[in-house]
This record gives sequence, structure tokens and C-alpha cells, in this order.
Amino acid sequence: MPLGNGDTPARIESGDDYIESLRNRNLKVFLFGELVDEPVDHPMIRPSINAVAETYDLAIREPEVATVESSLTGKRVNRFLHVVQSADDLVAQNMMQRKLGQNTGTCFQRCVGMDAFNSLYSVTYEIDEKHGTAYHERLKAFLTAMQERNYVVGGAMTDVKGDRSKAPHEQDDPDLFVHVTKRNKDGVWLKGAKAHQTGCINSHWIIAMPTMRLGADDEDYAIVAAFPVDAPGITYIYGRQSCDTRSMEGGSIDIGNAKFSGQEAMVVLDNVFVPWSHVFMDGEHDFASMLVERFTCYHRRSYVCKTGVGDVLIGAAAQAAEDNGVEKASHIKDKLVQMTHLNETMYAAGIASSHQARATKSGAYLNDDMLANVCKHHVTKMPFEMGRIAQDLAGGLVSTAPSEKELKHPELRALLDKYLRGRTDVPTESRIRILRLIENMTLGRNAVGYLTESLHGAGSPQAQRVQIGRQMQLDFKKALARRLAGVDASDDE
Amino acid sequence: MPLGNGDTPARIESGDDYIESLRNRNLKVFLFGELVDEPVDHPMIRPSINAVAETYDLAIREPEVATVESSLTGKRVNRFLHVVQSADDLVAQNMMQRKLGQNTGTCFQRCVGMDAFNSLYSVTYEIDEKHGTAYHERLKAFLTAMQERNYVVGGAMTDVKGDRSKAPHEQDDPDLFVHVTKRNKDGVWLKGAKAHQTGCINSHWIIAMPTMRLGADDEDYAIVAAFPVDAPGITYIYGRQSCDTRSMEGGSIDIGNAKFSGQEAMVVLDNVFVPWSHVFMDGEHDFASMLVERFTCYHRRSYVCKTGVGDVLIGAAAQAAEDNGVEKASHIKDKLVQMTHLNETMYAAGIASSHQARATKSGAYLNDDMLANVCKHHVTKMPFEMGRIAQDLAGGLVSTAPSEKELKHPELRALLDKYLRGRTDVPTESRIRILRLIENMTLGRNAVGYLTESLHGAGSPQAQRVQIGRQMQLDFKKALARRLAGVDASDDE
Amino acid sequence: MPLGNGDTPARIESGDDYIESLRNRNLKVFLFGELVDEPVDHPMIRPSINAVAETYDLAIREPEVATVESSLTGKRVNRFLHVVQSADDLVAQNMMQRKLGQNTGTCFQRCVGMDAFNSLYSVTYEIDEKHGTAYHERLKAFLTAMQERNYVVGGAMTDVKGDRSKAPHEQDDPDLFVHVTKRNKDGVWLKGAKAHQTGCINSHWIIAMPTMRLGADDEDYAIVAAFPVDAPGITYIYGRQSCDTRSMEGGSIDIGNAKFSGQEAMVVLDNVFVPWSHVFMDGEHDFASMLVERFTCYHRRSYVCKTGVGDVLIGAAAQAAEDNGVEKASHIKDKLVQMTHLNETMYAAGIASSHQARATKSGAYLNDDMLANVCKHHVTKMPFEMGRIAQDLAGGLVSTAPSEKELKHPELRALLDKYLRGRTDVPTESRIRILRLIENMTLGRNAVGYLTESLHGAGSPQAQRVQIGRQMQLDFKKALARRLAGVDASDDE
Amino acid sequence: MPLGNGDTPARIESGDDYIESLRNRNLKVFLFGELVDEPVDHPMIRPSINAVAETYDLAIREPEVATVESSLTGKRVNRFLHVVQSADDLVAQNMMQRKLGQNTGTCFQRCVGMDAFNSLYSVTYEIDEKHGTAYHERLKAFLTAMQERNYVVGGAMTDVKGDRSKAPHEQDDPDLFVHVTKRNKDGVWLKGAKAHQTGCINSHWIIAMPTMRLGADDEDYAIVAAFPVDAPGITYIYGRQSCDTRSMEGGSIDIGNAKFSGQEAMVVLDNVFVPWSHVFMDGEHDFASMLVERFTCYHRRSYVCKTGVGDVLIGAAAQAAEDNGVEKASHIKDKLVQMTHLNETMYAAGIASSHQARATKSGAYLNDDMLANVCKHHVTKMPFEMGRIAQDLAGGLVSTAPSEKELKHPELRALLDKYLRGRTDVPTESRIRILRLIENMTLGRNAVGYLTESLHGAGSPQAQRVQIGRQMQLDFKKALARRLAGVDASDDE
Repeated sequence: MPLGNGDTPARIESGDDYIESLRNRNLKVFLFGELVDEPVDHPMIRPSINAVAETYDLAIREPEVATVESSLTGKRVNRFLHVVQSADDLVAQNMMQRKLGQNTGTCFQRCVGMDAFNSLYSVTYEIDEKHGTAYHERLKAFLTAMQERNYVVGGAMTDVKGDRSKAPHEQDDPDLFVHVTKRNKDGVWLKGAKAHQTGCINSHWIIAMPTMRLGADDEDYAIVAAFPVDAPGITYIYGRQSCDTRSMEGGSIDIGNAKFSGQEAMVVLDNVFVPWSHVFMDGEHDFASMLVERFTCYHRRSYVCKTGVGDVLIGAAAQAAEDNGVEKASHIKDKLVQMTHLNETMYAAGIASSHQARATKSGAYLNDDMLANVCKHHVTKMPFEMGRIAQDLAGGLVSTAPSEKELKHPELRALLDKYLRGRTDVPTESRIRILRLIENMTLGRNAVGYLTESLHGAGSPQAQRVQIGRQMQLDFKKALARRLAGVDASDDE
Repeated sequence: MPLGNGDTPARIESGDDYIESLRNRNLKVFLFGELVDEPVDHPMIRPSINAVAETYDLAIREPEVATVESSLTGKRVNRFLHVVQSADDLVAQNMMQRKLGQNTGTCFQRCVGMDAFNSLYSVTYEIDEKHGTAYHERLKAFLTAMQERNYVVGGAMTDVKGDRSKAPHEQDDPDLFVHVTKRNKDGVWLKGAKAHQTGCINSHWIIAMPTMRLGADDEDYAIVAAFPVDAPGITYIYGRQSCDTRSMEGGSIDIGNAKFSGQEAMVVLDNVFVPWSHVFMDGEHDFASMLVERFTCYHRRSYVCKTGVGDVLIGAAAQAAEDNGVEKASHIKDKLVQMTHLNETMYAAGIASSHQARATKSGAYLNDDMLANVCKHHVTKMPFEMGRIAQDLAGGLVSTAPSEKELKHPELRALLDKYLRGRTDVPTESRIRILRLIENMTLGRNAVGYLTESLHGAGSPQAQRVQIGRQMQLDFKKALARRLAGVDASDDE
Repeated sequence: MPLGNGDTPARIESGDDYIESLRNRNLKVFLFGELVDEPVDHPMIRPSINAVAETYDLAIREPEVATVESSLTGKRVNRFLHVVQSADDLVAQNMMQRKLGQNTGTCFQRCVGMDAFNSLYSVTYEIDEKHGTAYHERLKAFLTAMQERNYVVGGAMTDVKGDRSKAPHEQDDPDLFVHVTKRNKDGVWLKGAKAHQTGCINSHWIIAMPTMRLGADDEDYAIVAAFPVDAPGITYIYGRQSCDTRSMEGGSIDIGNAKFSGQEAMVVLDNVFVPWSHVFMDGEHDFASMLVERFTCYHRRSYVCKTGVGDVLIGAAAQAAEDNGVEKASHIKDKLVQMTHLNETMYAAGIASSHQARATKSGAYLNDDMLANVCKHHVTKMPFEMGRIAQDLAGGLVSTAPSEKELKHPELRALLDKYLRGRTDVPTESRIRILRLIENMTLGRNAVGYLTESLHGAGSPQAQRVQIGRQMQLDFKKALARRLAGVDASDDE
Repeated sequence: MPLGNGDTPARIESGDDYIESLRNRNLKVFLFGELVDEPVDHPMIRPSINAVAETYDLAIREPEVATVESSLTGKRVNRFLHVVQSADDLVAQNMMQRKLGQNTGTCFQRCVGMDAFNSLYSVTYEIDEKHGTAYHERLKAFLTAMQERNYVVGGAMTDVKGDRSKAPHEQDDPDLFVHVTKRNKDGVWLKGAKAHQTGCINSHWIIAMPTMRLGADDEDYAIVAAFPVDAPGITYIYGRQSCDTRSMEGGSIDIGNAKFSGQEAMVVLDNVFVPWSHVFMDGEHDFASMLVERFTCYHRRSYVCKTGVGDVLIGAAAQAAEDNGVEKASHIKDKLVQMTHLNETMYAAGIASSHQARATKSGAYLNDDMLANVCKHHVTKMPFEMGRIAQDLAGGLVSTAPSEKELKHPELRALLDKYLRGRTDVPTESRIRILRLIENMTLGRNAVGYLTESLHGAGSPQAQRVQIGRQMQLDFKKALARRLAGVDASDDE
């Protein structure tokens, strides 16, 4: 099976292997109006690659956390490539997500792909059952290959959408949703664009999927297909992040989190060819909503990752308070308790959803949808409140500290050391570094992932409210009330 | 083994059996300045007995929910009498609690006892291990007897406490915490009072426990002992509830929930004798805090029951909106979504705590303490907000409707039917009944359980904040932050 | 001018005068299925009369607060009967409202009438201006008479409404909104019912007004008319309140606030005659919405009264904490700060609205509508949160204390005194009284006014959101944004 | 009187005059490790200068808003230089602040100085009264000169503070609070540093003041002194802001708000000389707390400025929703209502504080302190929630849009125009500009002022809670409660 990336090693093991595997792919990536020579070496892109690399290194350091026995091959594989076979598998994903959040303080970009093929696993099974197609076996073959090579698979769902009041086929421009422009015996050709694609450039393969419920007239939009990141016809346009260029200033302080960041880019597909072997849905529009719902069900609970990032923020806030010498004040302690209460609420809802999983027909498990939505809906609010409290504990200097160059300046260094000192035993630079980390997470690069992406990823707040509304069983609950109120009895009279 | 209640049947099966078992016990119960003749027949007390009876009837109707195979005897027993052997057992408790909340719309009063002997189960094991005592076997014998008779066991923890700034032995009056006044070869004598004891009069046996961490000088307060509810020397003083006397007015509408209510009373022990066979701690003050912490760990997650009550409130609010003809308005739907989001948040935190249980040395499982506290802390707020929204959806009539006697009055009936009608197809009485149920749950009898008791039961809000604070692992989190900020590295330089 | 109440004194001065003025009116008031003999002497009704009486006594004790020079007569009149001539007059209303809330801990029932004739004052002026009618002079004559007699004037707006999706004339039953059934040269006849009418039975006169925007087909519903409370054809049906019958138990403790309460009743008009001299709108449907909007503009800021009630609740919570001996704990102090912050937020919004008043064409001042809505919208939430915190500070005993009869019982008195004592220097009864007051305000009689009525009075929460939405000037604000973003410039290119 | 800036024009009129007046001052300003040649021409500094310039231009365009008749000279002066003579003057400040927030979308930097000399005005009066000093006349002379020249006066309060648990004189390093190092017949010499000084570089003069309550041992710290910004011995170290370098990239889109920004810098005083004529307190440590309290009283209500900034954010969010074609969805409208409700709450509390002002002994008015604290405390939270909602309405693209260089790139321009289009009639660039403005205000440069500075300016949240706590009149409120509960009566018995 041709899997692209011809020159990558047969199997990636370490984070370093992974980073090497990304080289020389000749991707067409635009950033600041120029083609990027080699993303791996670009100082603004590299931190996002480091975050993915940590998913490999964790698997080596803590295999019980980040690897699992594959249901497809019986071999030990990275947990990000595993089809979940039990509630415990889903909970274990959450544990890994929290740990990676703790280790990187940012988005490590592999959850979309994981949740994508897990949802496809059960959906292809049910498409085949109804339509007599053979998508499920194809998908298993593809996944097996990915597991063997230990690749990063991205999932691409969000279309650019154009006018939100119109269905895909009703748009003025048919390309506003990714669709099939041509089919022949070898495969299909795709056109369109996927917006804010997390970690796309750092992936090896991408699976494109529909972004919404589709009708019969949207048949050409009902396409699921996998292709290598370096397939011909793809243009990547890098998304700006707050403070992104601090990574290019050369220092390590002002960036806040010098090693890790997230990545979002736009992926433009200009008639990208996909052979049939990598097509997992084509025209079965009646399954688009099932796919979207299962994907969001998995993915809304994957936001447990943010509680790992939240742990970093809690730690930074506590450290800042300690550096200021105020860590014993009751209101300071209470604010840390409040941050923790919020953080653990998201965690609890996420893992509760995973624990309450049920088997699909395919054997893969699907977590509880109501609780997944409850989790994600809190994720759209609580990190903002945690960020606010962290800034409160940090003090105003979090947004007014001088630049790293002042801190290193021969004349100013002593002056700043003198005047920006908090507790006398804490080096001024250490104090500033913690404040810059809080800035990074509440205003800077990683605020994009911790705040904005927590709002919109896996669906904006209203999407969760709609889904909670669908499942709130009002008829059952009204009957409970009527019985206790004596209405049903009194109506009977 | 003498187990008191000599004239009760060998084994209680149904709710009716249970109600009969409470008769003729000659309890000394004061209410409105008078001794209650027979609590079972008192219209203000009976609804609380009905709520407990439902725990028996549910076990018959849905044995998979409310019964379980006993680890002590291998026989099927009521889940409220079971020592939890797994995380699944703990989750199953939560499922039962939610269902009973749905079925009764109130507090069914059996969780304290269940959580009490579960915590005692592991604590007596560890006391024995350290002190060479034999409490654990005694407890097992007691529990086995309770399971065989299918009795209601209450747990009595909260002392009246006097001056909150003093330890038990420092109080002006030594009786402000229950303590041993005398010991001989047969047993111990207890004196003191336990405040707001849920369902005490509706129990068969009570287990008294210390209410807080104790020091060496508090040895006589380090007592755990079980005694029958009708033991000599006990006085019960019934607690008033909002709108309690509506139960004595004869109708069924104004009371809101005519069948079910909660119960809290003060239990005064005037040298109550307990034989050694029913003493499970005596003087091991060093284990008082472990007992309190394990009890509250179980009990704070038992508040999942309130999500069942919340289901009733959501249903009532939805029904009221429908009766008013406004159920399709977007803001109405959104408020029901909000209520559901809050309700499921408490549920998620509770069951997450149960799912994350670990085995204690005794083999009994203990749920996750952080998440139990997160759960209960939400329970101290969210029902209040849900109650507010329910009143919003109900409309002002929820607090200004005329009395049942007006609704039944020959002259007024037609007038009220004409003028208090909402949607024409909903009988006015039905509409009012639903509003009275909402009043019952937000201002009336069951507001006591749904709101006030949600605040204070298993510890007031600050108790959870203290416990969250103890477990928030700031050192670990500060280290995460320092590493990502480059502090630890920079400090090394 | 015949003003009804023939046997009342020419002018009421004191609270006692007022109470006497209510006697012997032969009102048809139903309560618990029976006609009330004399409301003044009914123990459940009397506290609501006492609350109104306090508006008279305050005027004597603190004339600068509760009286003002009439613009109609130049004489000093009760502020509740004054047409506001300036922003300061509006602010002075708020000050008086807060003080009366502090003094009574409940709803003193006179604001609806005050806000009603103030809005009518300017609206009749503008009706006359457009339609050449003479309503304004009539209203002035009526008001002058009321001022001279120092009467209580109630305002009756809220119709029972039936099916909320239909206009008045579309209802199956034409009486679901108050309307004119007949007109002749002497006057008009009114039929219909007004729901949850605050203090109606305690008033001398009532002004009925339309409850919503009306169309041309609703002409007969566009009626504003004043009539004495004892006019023939009126039936009053008393609304139940939580714990209302505690007022009939004979004691003074359990009721919480023994002296004061609110009152809501349904007023059924069965062809009540009103002479033309007391008709202030008849058929000018085009002014119904102006009237409703001005009334709600005044009235939504009148909810500053709740901050006076909130002061009582803050005081009670602080006292309860002190009685428990915990008033120095930082979390206790912080919760009192939080209550205060919420309370003063409502106050600030209310008085800001009054301060920003502008003159209408009639010369009467009208407060700022946006801020009035902001105020009232907070009032629909903050008292609930304050009530929750008060219950937190009170401790669980707030809902489980024994009845007054136990406290006074010869055998139990000493027992309860011993066991329910907090700080040794605080009598147990005093401690319980404060807890009963908190119960009264959060679950009992005055919770109806403090919580439910705060939600629904002057319009439910959504009504304020709609009104805020209407005034939020999005076009202006979008233009601000476009200019700063460089859009308007860039679009120009 | 020597007023420094020898080469500036006698009187500044327009914004352009103002900008010219800042040139050639040879300030020692460090930014990115280098001395800034001419701040006026530095692309990162200039937007903050433009914001101050707008305070001049507004005075020309709308003199009724931004000018007032001076109480010192009778001439029309800029409102920022006026000593408030009435509540109306204070309200007018708020109106001007809101308008400038609307016009600039950022911090225009002149409120600290205004609030500083207003508080000094009454405090110097009272110092003189007690100590027989002559500070008040000196201050009037200084202010008159400032009014005549129409200068920008900054206020410098916040010391760097070192170890927060120690008083100034207890610090290891005496310079951690600004203090007098030397005095002679001509004047005093100052040493120390003031942190995050808003607009300091853009001012003409600075008034340094103590930052906290002082004791007798802190006498040298009890210094108030004015000096020109270009006085010898001052070093300015520029504070970094999120995304600050986008101003140096050359475009106008990515910066979000290309014209305006705030400014915070550290001011290091190395024995700066001040003649006695410009010293307004020297050693009167007993007045330090009065000065701080009056300053924060004024300044906490000056945060009404943020409601003007909030208007821009509401407008941007509404525009973004419209650009996406979803402005009619009910949840979108409701979120705009929610933003407005929050924004107007801050406004109401601020202006209520101003309206409730009272005269000080000096004749200058001081606004209500409780309400000022209530206002500011909301400002520490509500802008964060508004920012969250704005990001919600914006959609994910707010943080993932490509850079301006992509949008202008010959190859990509058409591609992005095609794929990033929302409503077809809105140019893609316009859509992106609005999103960049929202990014600017919630994550970027102006988030520093809108969020972080809202938290910490004029005191962090806990400072307001302390001040609210001091004024909450618990004794009065407890007495209210005791009276209604019948406690005081029952205690009397």
C-alpha cells in the first residue's frame, strides 16, 4: 500500500525520529507571505512540532500511559492510533491527554485524528451494514499501516462554510465545502478548504470528513478520504497566533513557553487525488450526521487535555504568588482552590463520559454523549475564569514587565534585578519567567489553544447546548413531575 | 444477638412491611410541643416514611438497581446495606440514588447510614491492624444481622458543637459532643446530642460516630456505637420544615408533593447503653479524622441523589412552561438546557468520583476524594440556581396562587378555572399542581432537602474548599510551571 | 368628587389611622375557602397591613425621607403620592424604598401605585396632546384628592393572560384581559381579572391599566380607570405564601418576621362601574405600549427596595455567624463582602437610573430605561445568591430547628437551651430567632417577596433582556468597531 | 515658575500640538535593550501617544464633553485638568471617559493624573489645616500652570514594593519604595522606582505619591512631589505588551487597532531633584492613607472608561456575527444582550458613585467610596466575560486567521478571498479586520488594558473586597435583623 512520505523510516519510535520524519517533504506552507523552506527549522513552527514529539517520547518514558495493545495487530502501539475497545481505553486516553497537557502546556494536536478514526471505525461498520460497502475493512487496513509506521494522523473536519444559512450545494461557490470534483476507477479528486486545522502540517496523513449533517443534494460532499500531507495539490496557509513572533526574537524568556506551542493552519485542496483504498465514505450522506455526532462525542470529552494545561496554569499562579511572598494569604489560597475546583470539574465530566461508554456495533466503544457535551461546555468557560484568576495572582507585572533584552542589558540588568525582585530568595529572572508563562497562557501563543480553541474546538458553545437539549429527556422528566404533583392522577379523575 | 425492635418481623421485604415495622416502638418524639403518639400515622411525618419505603419497593421492582449480592453472606441484599466491593458498586449506588431522587423528589434518608458503615468497614480494619482490637469482626456481625433483617441503619455524626472555636473537651459543657460517660464489662453509656439527623426516626438502628478530628484529650469522644432507635434514654425532637403544616391541612394540592418528604430531627442521648458487641471504636482518637474523611468522601458523592430530585424540577419547569403555552420560546428552551447542564455536572462529578475508586486495605472500595469534594461543592450552589430558573419558568403564580380550598370552593371553582387557565387543554388544577410542586421544591418542604441540606449536608461549602485545598498538589504543579517557564533550568545556571 | 370609603377620615396621618381606615369595608376577600370577616384582624393578613402602615409612620418620624412638597398643591405629601419633578425626586424615592425595606424586611406594597400614576401623568399628557382628550386634568384632580386624603393607591396591571400566544381580542374568553363591557354617559363597566396584585386589599383605590402593547382590535382593552377597593363587583382571592399559616400559630418565633409581610391577591372585576371622572384612557390603544414601557421603566428601578431587604438579610447572616462564634473566619467575612457587593450593585444600578432621569413633556421626570432594566435584571438573580450565602452562614439549623412550642416546652426548654447554644453569651432563643428570620427570607413568607417576586415583578427576566436588546445601539457600536478596525476606511478604497 | 520642557509652546491646543510637544525631550527610554531615539516616531510607542492626543482633539470637537470652566482661573480648560466642584463634574468625567474609550478602544492614560491631583487637592487642604503647612496653595499654583499650558500630568503611585510582607522602612533595600534621600533649602531629592506607570512617557509632568498607609518610621516615604518627565535622573523602561511588535510589522490589519494603544513603563528615579514649590507632602505620614483612599475612591470609578472600550467590543462582536451571517440567531442576540448587561452594570455603578458625591472640606467633591469599589470590583471580572463572549461570537478564525502578508500576497489573495468569505457582500478583508480587532482586545495589545489592567489598576480585586468590608456597616444591619427577628425585644425581657 502506497502510504506517501516515501523517504520516511519504516517506523518512527522517538520524538527525534518523528521530527526527522517531517523533513524534506516539500510542503507548500505559506507564512508571512512567503513559502516556508523547512517547517521543522522554522522557529515559529518548531514549538508546535516539539509538542507532537512529546507524544512519542511519553510513549517511551511511560508506555503504560501512552501505548496500548492494538486490537488490530496485537502489538503495542501508540495510544493515539488505537481503536478503543472498552471504557477503560477511553479513560486511559483522558489520562494521557491530561499528562500531555501538563508536560507541554499547550495543544499537542493528535486528538482530532484519534477521535476521527475511532468514530469512522464504527460508522464505516454501520455504513457497510446498510449499504453493503467495504469501507470498514479499508479503514482497518489503513489504520494497521499507520500503527505499524507509528504515524501522526490528522483529522480534517471544519469546512470554511461561507454563508452559514445555506447548505453546501446551495452556496454560490461549490468549493466552500470540500467535495468530490471527479471520480474514476482509481479514485476521487477533492476540492475545497478546511479551516483552522490543528497540527495539520505536523501530521503524516490527514483524513478529511464532512463537517455537518448532509442531505441528498449534498452527495458529493459526503466524502471521507485519507491522503498524505505531502499529496500534490495541497496548500497550507499558517494561522497567526497572538505573540507568535516572539518565537523569532531569539530569547527564551518573553515567549513564556519556549519549547511548546500549538498549530492551526488552513488546508486548501486543489483537486487532490485519493485512491479508492483510502476512501471511507463516498456519497452516503445519510451517515454524515452520525459521523459528526460520534466524532464530537469523542472529541468534546478529549478536552480533558485542557485540565493538564490548567494544572500548569495553577502551578504558575501558585508560584507567582509565592514569588511575591503572599502565598499564605487566605484569599490567595482560596483562589487556587477555586481554580482547582474549576479544573477538576472539567476533568470529572470528561472522564465520567468515558467511564459511561457503551459498545457500538463495530465493537469500538463510544463514550456518553450528554456528559461529553457537559464537559466541553464547561471548557468553553472555565479556562477563561482560570486565566483571569491566574492574572489576578500574578499581579500587574504580568502585562507590564520589560523585555528580555532589558533583563539582559548590561546597564539595566542590575537595576531591574534590584527593583523587580519580590521575595529576596527568588531570582528576578525566575519571577519574570513565571509571569511570562502566565502571559503566554492567558494572552499569548498558548492562550490561543487554552482559551479560544477551548471555546470553538469540537463545536462552539451553542453546539453543545443544542446537543444537550436533544438529550434532556423532557418527556420522561415531565412525567416524573406530574406523578409527584398528583397531576396524572388528577387528570385521570 | 439482641437487635432491639423485638416485635418486628424477622425480615422486612416490602415498603408496607417496612412501614409496619415502625409501629408501636414507643419512641419519645416531640413535635409542636407534644409527644407524637405514633409517628407512622402523623400526617406531617408520614411522607418522610413513605420516602424510605420507596427504597424497599424499588428493590422489588428493580432489583438490579437496588439490590446486590452481599460480600458478607453471598445473598441478595438491599444496596443500602452493602459494603462496596468495587468501583462499579459505588457507581451503582449513584444510579440508585438518582433514581430514588426521581421517584420521590426528596431525601430518602438512607445514604448516611450506608456511607457510615462503609467507612467504618475500612477504618475498623485499620484500627484493628494498628491497635490489635476486634472492631472489624464485630462490625461485620452487626452488618450481617442488619442485612438479614433488611433494616434501615442511620448514621449519626453531627454533634451540636457549642462554641465552634473549642475542642470537645474544652467546651464549658462536656455534653456538647456525644461521649462516653461510663464503661463497664457489658458496655458503654453515651451522652450528648446529634443535630439535624436525617431520617433518624424512620430508622431501625443508628450508628453514632465522632464528628471531627480528635486529640488525645478527647478520648471519650472517640466513640462509635450502634443502638436501636428505641433504646432507652433517647429523645427525638422533630425539626420544622418550611410549609410543614400543609401536610396537616387535609388536601393534596398545596403540599406540592403530597406523598414524599424528608426528615431531620435532633437526637438527645441521655446515658444510652450500648453493649460491647455494638461498639466499633472506643478511644482510638487517632482514627477519628480518618473516619470523618472517609465518611465525607463517600457522602459528598452520594449527593448525586440531588440530580434525581433535579430531574423532577426540570420536568416540573418544562411542564409549567408547556402549561403556559410558551415551551417553544428559545429562551425557555435555553433555560431548560441550562438546568440540565448544571444537573449533569453534579452527576458527572459524583460518578467520576465513584468510577475512580480504589480498594482500601479492608477490600472495601473508596471513591476519589478530590472529585467527591468537587461534586458536593457544586451541589452547594447549582440546585439554588436550578431552583431560581424553575421559578422563572413557572411564572409569578408559583407564589401567589390561591389555596386548594379556593380551588375546590363551589363559588370560586369556576371563577378560578376561568381565570387561571393557561393553555386551554390543560385543566387549571393540573397547572396549579405543577406550580405547587415547584413551590414545594424551591420554597417549601422539599426545598429544605433540595437547597438547605444540599448546602450543609456532608459539610458546608468551606469544608469542601479546605479538602480541595489539601489535595491540590501545588508542589507538583509549580514544578510543571517552572519547567515550562525555564525557571528550573535558569536557576541551575 | 365621590371617592368611596365614605366612612374613612378626611385625612390619614399615622400608621394607626391607616389601619383604622381599612376597617369595615365589607370587602369580599376569600382565604382558605372562606370569606374573611375583617382583613385587618386576620392574623395572616395583618402583617401585610403593618408593612403599609410603616410607610405612614416613617413619614412622621423621618419626613425628609418619606414626604415631599406636592407639585399639585404645594403641600407636604407622602412621597408615595408625589409626581416626580426631578432626578432628585426619583433618587429620593429609592432612598425611601431602601429604608422601608430595611425597616420591614418585606414588600411594603406602595411602589406599584406610585409608579403607575407617575407614568400615567406623562402618558395622559401626551394622549391629550395627540387626541385632544382631557385625561391629564382628570388625573391631576384624582391625584390631588388622593394626596389630600393621604390614601394608598394601588396599581393593577398584570392580567391573567390565558394563552400567551394570543392577543387579548383573540382569546377564546374575552375576559382574560380586563376590558370595557359597557359604556354610557356616566362611565364604563370593567370585567376581567388581575393576577398577583401586590397590596390590593390594603389599598384605598386601585388604578387598572393595560398589561401590554395593544392593537386596533384591542380597543376595549385600552382602558385605564381608578376605582375604590370596595367598589361593587370586586372579589379578592388571597394568594398563599410559603409558611403563611405560621402567622396563625400564635407564637412569634417560627414566623421569623412576626410583624411584617407582603400581600398578593387576585382581583376579579365583575362589571365594576367607573365614572368618567376616573377614566384616564379609553380606547387609545396606540398609547398602551408607552404606558407599559414608562411604568416598567419606573418600576424596574423601584426594586431598589430589595436592597433594603438585603441589608436585613446581610445583618441576619452576620448575626448568625457571630452567634455561632465564627465571625472572624476569613471565609465568613468574605461571604458578607460578597453579599454586600451584590446588594450594592443592584442599588447602584437603580439610583444611577434615577440620577440619569430626563423630563417628559408633562414635566414629570422619567428615569433612564437601560439602567432600570440593568437594575431589575440583577434583581432577578442576586437576591437568590444572597439567600444562598445567608443560608450558608446560618448553618443547617436554619432548616432543622425545632418549633417554638418545643422551645417553650417545660421539659424540653432546658434541653434545647443546653444543646442549641452557640456562643455561651447568646441566649439560645435569640440564636433561633435569627435563624427563623433567615428562613423567613429565604424559604418562608418573605422569600416570596424577596425571591419570587424579585424574579417576576415588573417583568420576568426575559422582559428585561428584550428591553436591553432594544436599546443597545448596535449600529452605533458596530460603527465604532469598524472605524478602529480600519474597515470603513478599507471599504472606502 | 520653572515648568520644564522649555521648548514646548506656551499652550497646547490640538492633538497635533500635543504630539509635537513631546519631541526632542531626550528622555532616557529603554525598549528592547536599546535607547529609543524619539518615542514620538517609534511605531510601537506612537499608538499610545495617539490615544492621549485624542483627549485634546475631543476637547476641540466636543468641548461640552471634554472641557470645563476652571474653578482656579474661570477659564475653559481640559476636563482632565479640572478640580471637581460638584457631583455633576464627576459624572461628566465618566461621560468623557466612556466616550474616549469608544473613540480609542484603549487606555488614553490621563485618568491617573486627574484623580491624583483631585485627591491631593482635598488632602493638602486637610494637611495644612492640621499641620499649618502651605501645600494647598502650592498645589493650586502648580495646577493653574498646568491648566494654562494644557499639559498632560501623570500620577505615579505604585512602588515596586519588594517583599509585600514588610513596611517600606523594613525592606532590605530602602529604595523599594520611592523616598527622600536628601533635603536642603531648595528642595528634595527622590530615589526609587514606580512600576507599570500608565502613560508616563507621554506626560509632561508626573506627580509621585506614596502607595500605601505609612507609619512614623516611614516618614521619608511620605513624599508627594511633581517633576517634569524630562527631569535629570529618570530612566524609563518600557513594558512589553502582548503582540506589541505587530505595530512594527508595517501593516494595518494584524495589529487590530492600528492607531491606538496604551502604555505602561517603569520609572526609575535616581536622586531626582524637586524644588519645594513642587512638593505637596513631606513627612506627614499620617495623611498617606487618606491620600491613597481618596485617590482609589476617584480612580476605581474612573474605570467607567472600560465601558467605552466595551462598547467597541460589543460592536465588533455584533459586526463579526453579522459578517458570518448569523446575527439573527436568538443565542447570538442574547449574547449581545448579556455583554450589554455587563457593560452597563459597570457604568451604572461608576456613575452612581459619582452622582452620590459629597463635598470635602476643600470644596472639591469626592464620589461615593462603596459604589466606587463596587464598580471597580465588577471591572475586575466583567471585561473578561465580555471578552469570552466576543470570542464566541467571532468564531475560531479570530485566532487562526493568516497574516496580513498572506492576505496581500498575489497568489494567495484570491484564494483567501474565496475561502474566508462569510456573507457574500462583506469583503473578506473587512471580516478579517474585525476579527483582528477582537483579537487585539481579548488577546493582543489592548487586552493588556482591557483585561489585565482592569484587574490590577487602582487595586487588585482583594483591595476592593477589603474596602467594601470596611464600609459594610454590619452593626447597623445586625440591629435591623435583630429588631425584625424579635431578638432585641426578647433579650430585653
